Amino acid sequence: MLSTRAVVLFGLIAISSTACAGSKANDEGIRDARAAIEAANAKFSEAFARGDAKALSAMYTSDAIAFPPDSEMIRGNGAIGEFWKAQRDGGVQSAALTTIDVGRSGDVAHEVGNVSLTIQSAGKEPTTAMAKYVVVWKRQVDGSWKLHRDIWNSLPATK
Amino acid sequence: MLSTRAVVLFGLIAISSTACAGSKANDEGIRDARAAIEAANAKFSEAFARGDAKALSAMYTSDAIAFPPDSEMIRGNGAIGEFWKAQRDGGVQSAALTTIDVGRSGDVAHEVGNVSLTIQSAGKEPTTAMAKYVVVWKRQVDGSWKLHRDIWNSLPATK
Repeated sequence: MLSTRAVVLFGLIAISSTACAGSKANDEGIRDARAAIEAANAKFSEAFARGDAKALSAMYTSDAIAFPPDSEMIRGNGAIGEFWKAQRDGGVQSAALTTIDVGRSGDVAHEVGNVSLTIQSAGKEPTTAMAKYVVVWKRQVDGSWKLHRDIWNSLPATK
Repeated sequence: MLSTRAVVLFGLIAISSTACAGSKANDEGIRDARAAIEAANAKFSEAFARGDAKALSAMYTSDAIAFPPDSEMIRGNGAIGEFWKAQRDGGVQSAALTTIDVGRSGDVAHEVGNVSLTIQSAGKEPTTAMAKYVVVWKRQVDGSWKLHRDIWNSLPATK
C-alpha cells in the first residue's frame, strides 16, 4: 500500500508542478509572454509602417475589439486591420510601441505600454503624439500571441 | 495492479476536472466572474456617488494602474481613490457602468463595458458623457475581485 500511495502522491506533485504552475514557473511564463509580445509589437510597427491591413488584421483574434478614442468600438480583426491602414493613409507615419508591464494567467496576458506616433499633416512638419495603452493578448494553439482587446488614450502633450 | 492504476487514473481525472478546468467549468468560471464584477461595479457607482475615496481605493489592487485620458498613468490604489474623489468633487455626479463582455483565465478576468457619466458644471444643466472601457480584474485570496488595470476613452458625442 505504501508504494501505491507514493505513486499517487508523486503523480499529484508532478501534475501540480507542471500543469498548475508554481511561482517560479509563473515567472518564466511571464518572461516568455513578454518576449513574444515585444516581438509581436515590433512586427506590428513594421506592418503599420507598410500600411499592411492584412498583416495587421492577422495579429488580432477573430473576435478582437479595438477601442479608438472618440469612436465606437471596432469589432473583428478584419475591421481593425482596415482601421490601422486608414490611420496610416491619414498621415500617421509610424507607431513605436514600448512595453512597460506584462501580467499573465494561463493563455491570457495583459500588457501596459506607451506608443509614440509620428504624424505628418499635409504641408506641415511631422509631430509626435504619445499615448498609453492596455492590450489583452491571447495565446493561440500554435503558441503565437494575438491581440484580443486593444485600448489606448493620450498622454499629456509635452512642451 | 489494475486497481492501483484505476486509483491513479481517477486521481488524474479528478485533478484535471477541478484544478485545470475544462470547457464547462470555464463557462461557469466566466459566469461567476461576471456576476462578481457586476456586483463590484454597482458598489463602485455607490462609492463614487458618495465621493468615498477610501471605499474606491479598496476596490483596486495595491499595484493597480488607472489610465485617465490626457493624463499620466495613476499608480497604486490610494492615488486612484483620490483621483475618483477629485472627479466627483469636480462635478461628475454619477458613473453608471454597464458590463458588455467578460473573459477569464484562472484568477484574472478582463471586462469590456460602457460608462455613462452625469456631469454638473457650475450654473449649467447637467450633461451626459459616454465612455468605453477595459478593466483587468484580479481575484483575491478571499474570493473577491479587484480592479488591476482600468482604462477608458470617450465614445462619440450623441446629438
